[in-house]
Amino acid sequence: MLTTDDLHASVSDPLLDTMNFLNEITTRHPDAISFAPGRPYDGFFDVEQVFTHLRRYLRHLEETGASPGQVRDALFQYGPTAGRIRGLVADSLRKDEGIDVPPEAVVVTVGCQEALLLAVRALHAGPQDVLLVASPCYVGVAGAARVLGVGTAPVHDREGGFDCAALRAAVLAERARGRRPRACYLIPDHANPRGTTMPLTTRHELLDLVAELDLFLLEDSPYRMVSPGPRIPTLKALDRDRRVIHLGSYAKTLFPGARVGYAVADQPVTDRAGCTGLLAAELTKIKSMVTVNTSPLSQAVVAGMLLAADGHTARLNSEASAYYGDTMRTTLRRLEECFPPERRRALGVRWTRPEGGFFLALDVPFAADNAALTRSARQYGVIWTPLSYFHPHGGGTHGIRLSTSYLTEHDITEGTARLARFVEAEAAGGGRPLR
Amino acid sequence: MLTTDDLHASVSDPLLDTMNFLNEITTRHPDAISFAPGRPYDGFFDVEQVFTHLRRYLRHLEETGASPGQVRDALFQYGPTAGRIRGLVADSLRKDEGIDVPPEAVVVTVGCQEALLLAVRALHAGPQDVLLVASPCYVGVAGAARVLGVGTAPVHDREGGFDCAALRAAVLAERARGRRPRACYLIPDHANPRGTTMPLTTRHELLDLVAELDLFLLEDSPYRMVSPGPRIPTLKALDRDRRVIHLGSYAKTLFPGARVGYAVADQPVTDRAGCTGLLAAELTKIKSMVTVNTSPLSQAVVAGMLLAADGHTARLNSEASAYYGDTMRTTLRRLEECFPPERRRALGVRWTRPEGGFFLALDVPFAADNAALTRSARQYGVIWTPLSYFHPHGGGTHGIRLSTSYLTEHDITEGTARLARFVEAEAAGGGRPLR
Repeated sequence: MLTTDDLHASVSDPLLDTMNFLNEITTRHPDAISFAPGRPYDGFFDVEQVFTHLRRYLRHLEETGASPGQVRDALFQYGPTAGRIRGLVADSLRKDEGIDVPPEAVVVTVGCQEALLLAVRALHAGPQDVLLVASPCYVGVAGAARVLGVGTAPVHDREGGFDCAALRAAVLAERARGRRPRACYLIPDHANPRGTTMPLTTRHELLDLVAELDLFLLEDSPYRMVSPGPRIPTLKALDRDRRVIHLGSYAKTLFPGARVGYAVADQPVTDRAGCTGLLAAELTKIKSMVTVNTSPLSQAVVAGMLLAADGHTARLNSEASAYYGDTMRTTLRRLEECFPPERRRALGVRWTRPEGGFFLALDVPFAADNAALTRSARQYGVIWTPLSYFHPHGGGTHGIRLSTSYLTEHDITEGTARLARFVEAEAAGGGRPLR
Repeated sequence: MLTTDDLHASVSDPLLDTMNFLNEITTRHPDAISFAPGRPYDGFFDVEQVFTHLRRYLRHLEETGASPGQVRDALFQYGPTAGRIRGLVADSLRKDEGIDVPPEAVVVTVGCQEALLLAVRALHAGPQDVLLVASPCYVGVAGAARVLGVGTAPVHDREGGFDCAALRAAVLAERARGRRPRACYLIPDHANPRGTTMPLTTRHELLDLVAELDLFLLEDSPYRMVSPGPRIPTLKALDRDRRVIHLGSYAKTLFPGARVGYAVADQPVTDRAGCTGLLAAELTKIKSMVTVNTSPLSQAVVAGMLLAADGHTARLNSEASAYYGDTMRTTLRRLEECFPPERRRALGVRWTRPEGGFFLALDVPFAADNAALTRSARQYGVIWTPLSYFHPHGGGTHGIRLSTSYLTEHDITEGTARLARFVEAEAAGGGRPLR
């Protein structure tokens, strides 16, 4: 009989238990309004799109000179490990983001999660190497590191956002412990879970700092193209020293069901023979041992969508961006109404005010743990995500994350009202167990 | 500037260089006949199948009660990490293989490679844990272990096939070194690279032995359903003690472009709280940190194919199996003609005689290394794979693998004739560098 102690430590990760708990709560309370899932709104999806986009890509292959046999093989056979559609991805990055890299700098991956895993694996060579993680942060980064046995250390946000001084302090502290920080993972735009966006000046400051500290940045930016309004340039677009590995996802801009993401890694790497290639080629080697290649079928549908938009995924998502902007603004407005300024101050409730993305975070005057979540779901019919889930190194005990992407206006209005009643009750001591 | 020494050791794996070398040789000699790629023959593929199978699965969802919104989400949204089509996979395993497990024992993966990675990760908890690998073996198993930093040790074939005494000896030797062997990876049917198949008596003996030694088996069987003739039961079908984790691939039976495989892991696992689940659930946790889930789009096409065949992938592949049987028999017959018995003995050439699968191996009287391969491609117009590639722990220096799956009868006839001329020349000393 196996026990979990016989298995790799990653299966006993408390993170996974908490995520399982969230799934269970959601299943057990199907009528609750859930601010938990970070999924795209599916009202824009249409089954026929898949067929149309697939046909468009196949036609494109024909029109660019592929024989019928080559078209067939592009769909059915194993494809190149780095991906079949790197050129279209590079083209789109140039048009959408001003990220100008050759196709050879792109690796097409099974969603952004694989891109993250490959980058973390490549950069961490020995037990002393450590990955810094902006905290709070997307849970998948800690997960990938744990599967690989790579150590992590937090860089805590200060005053609600990423702080370069905190990064410097973390690097120095890790070095003092004999560890070698290799990279820092962060989401500069509309970050999961707090929705904060890094100002342009901080971006420049950060790029200077990582060059000074000899560090790489893993920039994850899934929400940029599905957010309204102007965009601050990505770290990668500003990256003059090739310090940034840009991690991309089509889950939000196209659709999650394709499971297609990418890494942009244009860093030169020299091997022992003195030959120089790109870091992307090294990530590709690792990918060949993880998933061999990304489904050519999925790539074909994604390619059809990119062709339809002539590479401009921002334009493709104008309607979705407006929708997400509306749900975010509605949520913020309802929160204002539910917690007028005076009441807010009295309760000690405050929240972030993102201008885009899927998430915002609330500070609450009680421990927002699984027990509180259970009470919220059972007694108030509203589900949210404890912010502590996004603090794998501890913290976030009195915070909750609200996802605004998936709900209708009606559900937001009703859901925030329920949330307010729950918060009031908890603040009044309703959550304290009787003694 | 990065160097490969700054990166994880897996990127400097000599294995990868050899595979790259093979790709380069193939690109540099496009007119050479190549016995290298282990790809399915693509003459059976038809682009319209993808559309038909996708429609069939969507119709199936409707017919089994899904609302239009649920059908749409099944294709577009994130799906369950363990897969959306586990029930169909379990049904097919029951019909094809007599492997009778509940859907909960199945994890749908991004090809068999991810299934292998997840199983190796789960079973190896600490630095003392070691994976045994039947040798020679598929290169991907050594690759997955290296990415994860898991140590491996070979179990060398004896007299052309897997030998239980060699496994026992390897386990005892590893234990004497203070290491803990956890599992043994092998391909019991038409193994890559030698095409050998394990007899039924050995299967029973092996299952008894691993129960005695407290070891798991990672059974990989990609070629069974695309091989002609009767099949010996899988280890999993004979597995009474739940010692076998069965790794599956649809790359050969359906098509590589879907990148859909699976793991069957029905081993009970007890956690610290005393709750018991299946090993599949633990693999699912790891998968959530590697690829999150397998493309629902790819799963939908695979599901459509399984539905079309009512789960019988063997029946679906009857034409392909006959084709591969023909190409294998043709290759063997041409080798007999090129190397008549007397000449064969004089040269010291011999080969395996598989009854199915994609591969056979030749022993040759010279070092079949990259230099020899270069001469073969350049001067004789024929490409093969050095058998040493499949011996990551050393060995196989005087062997070559021939893949028979991808070539036409004409190419096989011409290719074996070229190969014979090359072998004769090498044996006559033609390959020795001048001094």
